[in-house]
Amino acid sequence: MLKKLIFCKIRLGILDQRILPFKTVYLKVKSAKQTAKAIKNMVTRGAPLIGCAAAYGYALELNNKTPKSWGEVKKIMLKASKDLKASRPTAKALFYAVNKLHNNALEFIDKNKSCRFNDVQLKKMRALLNKKAEEIYREDVYANEKLSVLGAKLIEARINVMTICNAGSLATAGIGTALGIIHKAHLQGKINKVYVCETRPYLQGSRLTMFELMQNKIPCCLITDNMAAHIMKTCNIGAVIAGADRIASNGDTANKIGTYMLSILARYHKIPFYIAAPVPTFDLNIKTGKDIVIEERSAKEVCFIKNVPIAPRKAAARHPAFDITPAKLITAIITEKAVIKPVNKESISKITK
Amino acid sequence: MLKKLIFCKIRLGILDQRILPFKTVYLKVKSAKQTAKAIKNMVTRGAPLIGCAAAYGYALELNNKTPKSWGEVKKIMLKASKDLKASRPTAKALFYAVNKLHNNALEFIDKNKSCRFNDVQLKKMRALLNKKAEEIYREDVYANEKLSVLGAKLIEARINVMTICNAGSLATAGIGTALGIIHKAHLQGKINKVYVCETRPYLQGSRLTMFELMQNKIPCCLITDNMAAHIMKTCNIGAVIAGADRIASNGDTANKIGTYMLSILARYHKIPFYIAAPVPTFDLNIKTGKDIVIEERSAKEVCFIKNVPIAPRKAAARHPAFDITPAKLITAIITEKAVIKPVNKESISKITK
Repeated sequence: MLKKLIFCKIRLGILDQRILPFKTVYLKVKSAKQTAKAIKNMVTRGAPLIGCAAAYGYALELNNKTPKSWGEVKKIMLKASKDLKASRPTAKALFYAVNKLHNNALEFIDKNKSCRFNDVQLKKMRALLNKKAEEIYREDVYANEKLSVLGAKLIEARINVMTICNAGSLATAGIGTALGIIHKAHLQGKINKVYVCETRPYLQGSRLTMFELMQNKIPCCLITDNMAAHIMKTCNIGAVIAGADRIASNGDTANKIGTYMLSILARYHKIPFYIAAPVPTFDLNIKTGKDIVIEERSAKEVCFIKNVPIAPRKAAARHPAFDITPAKLITAIITEKAVIKPVNKESISKITK
Repeated sequence: MLKKLIFCKIRLGILDQRILPFKTVYLKVKSAKQTAKAIKNMVTRGAPLIGCAAAYGYALELNNKTPKSWGEVKKIMLKASKDLKASRPTAKALFYAVNKLHNNALEFIDKNKSCRFNDVQLKKMRALLNKKAEEIYREDVYANEKLSVLGAKLIEARINVMTICNAGSLATAGIGTALGIIHKAHLQGKINKVYVCETRPYLQGSRLTMFELMQNKIPCCLITDNMAAHIMKTCNIGAVIAGADRIASNGDTANKIGTYMLSILARYHKIPFYIAAPVPTFDLNIKTGKDIVIEERSAKEVCFIKNVPIAPRKAAARHPAFDITPAKLITAIITEKAVIKPVNKESISKITK
C-alpha cells in the first residue's frame, strides 16, 4: 500500500488523497501551519491519519525553528498547537495527538527551564517530540491491528458487507479500522463481497476504498449512496461497518456524512451496524452527540466534481461533513481494547478508563 | 419553462436533459426507433414525459412512412410499438401511451380494412394518431394540474420539503407531479424551503430540480443523497414528496433509486412521505412491487461523471435505476382523481377502476 505520510524531521511528505487513485503526489510541508492547511484542505484525511499528520506537523515546527529561549519555544509550540487544532473541528484524534505532544512539550520545558537554554536542550526537545510523534503513529498501527482481529471475530459466516467513506489504510497509520476488519475477515474467508458507498461529495468510497479493496484483491462493488437501502434489501448484506471521527461518552458517534443514514437503514433491514475506532476517538468530555461540533464545509464541494459543475450557477447547497449516529443504532463499537456491546455510557467507561 | 418536446408531425425535437442546465439542445428524431433510442439514452426522462415522447414517436413513424397496404401499415405500427416498449422497462406511462396508440391504430385498421387502402385513408390514420398523441400530452398536463392542487391541500402549515430526482415540469407534460405540488403550495405561501437530493448517478436533482426551482424562485437547497437523514433530523422537514414510475395494485411504488431509502428515513423521523403520480402510473396487472422489473443500467454511469472518472479503472459497480418503496411506508399517493390514503389494494382499486 502507498505510504501516507513520509516524515524526515525537517519535512513531511503528505500523500495528496484528493487526487487518488488517479495520481500519486506528495505535498511537502515544513511547518505546523502548512500541515494544518493540508489537513483543512483534505490533502490528507481520515481521523486517525489526521492525528498522525498533526503530530508530525507539531514536531516539524520545532525541527525547523531555532528559538533562543524557553519563552520563545513555548510561544512556538503554543502557536503550532493552536494552528493544528483549528484545522478541522470533528476528528477527536487530531486533538488527542496535538494535546499529547503539546503536553510532552510543556513537561519538557517545565523540567528543564531552570537550566540555561542551549542547543543541546533544543536538540533533546526536538528528539523527544519526534519520538512522541512516531509513537502516535505506531500506537495507531497497533490499534488497527488489534481492533481488526477483534472485529473479524464478530463475523461468523461468509457475508456481504457494506461500508462508507474510507476507514482503511489511507485513513489510518496501519491497515485501517472498518477496512482493517474487512481485510482480516477476508483472509479468514468470511467476506463474499464488499459494497462500497461512493460517499459524496468527496467520493472517498469510490476513489479510496475501492482502490484499497481492489489492491488487496477483496471482491468489491461500488454503489451510489442512494442505493444503500435497495442493496441492503436485495443483496443479503450481513453487516455494515464504518469508522468514526469522535464518539461521545454515551456512544453517539460522529462519522462521515451518510453514516447516520446507513445506521437507520441497517436497523430497518435488521443488519448489524458496527463502528470501528481506536480508543483515542472517544471524547469523554462530551456527554452526547448533541455536543459534537459538525464541520460545515463549502457548498462548492457539493456543486462541483473535479471542477465540473453539476448544479446551476449560484445554487445554494449544504455541506455538513459529518453526521451523528445515535448509540442506540450501533450494534457494537470495535476498539483495540475490546468490543463494546451494548453501546452505552457504562460499557464505554469500562473500556476507556 | 423550456419546451420539452416539440412535435411537428414529421419531426420531434427532444430537449436533451442530459446536458441541462448547462446547455439547451434539442435532438431531432424522425422515427419510432430514433425516439426509442433517445428514451433509452435518457435524452428525455421522467415517466410521464417518456410516455408523451413515445406517443409522438409512434405517430411520427406513420407520418414519415408511405405504406402501400393495410398489411404494411400493421407491420410498421407493430414494429414501432415493439421498439418503443423495448426502450426502458420500468416507467408504466411508456407502456400506457404506446399501448393506447397502438390500440387506436389497430381499431382504425380493423374499421377500414374492408376499404381499399389509399392516400386518403393514410392521411386519416396519420391525423388520428397525431391527435391521440397530443391527447396523451394534454391528459398529462391536466393530471399534473389536478394532482398538484390536491397535493398542495395536504400541506397545512409552512414547511420545509424534501424531494429526490426530478418529478417536475421536465419530467412531465405540465407543471410536474411532486414539483407541481410544491409549486402550488409555494404560491399558497406554504413552502419555506425545498431540500433537493442530488440523485446520483444522473444528478437529476442537482441539474434539473434545482434548475426548475431556481427558475420559479422557490427557495431551495441542494444536498448530496447521503445527507438526507441528517437533514431530516436537523432541518425540520415537514414532508417528503417524490414521483413514481410504476405503482403495483397494492401501492408498492417503483421510483428513482434512493426513493426507498428516503421512505425509510422519513418513517424513522416521523415525516409524511408522499408519492405524486397520475393514474396511468398504476399497473393493476402487477400485484406487488416484487413483480416490477427494475432496469439495471451501465456501471459506467456510476464510475464516470460527465466523462470524468471517479473510481479506479475496472471498478465493478451496480446501477439499478429504480427501487421499490413498499406501500406501508407511503403516507398517501396523490393522483389527479383523489388522494389515496391509506395506501392499499382496496383504496387503490376504488380510484383506478
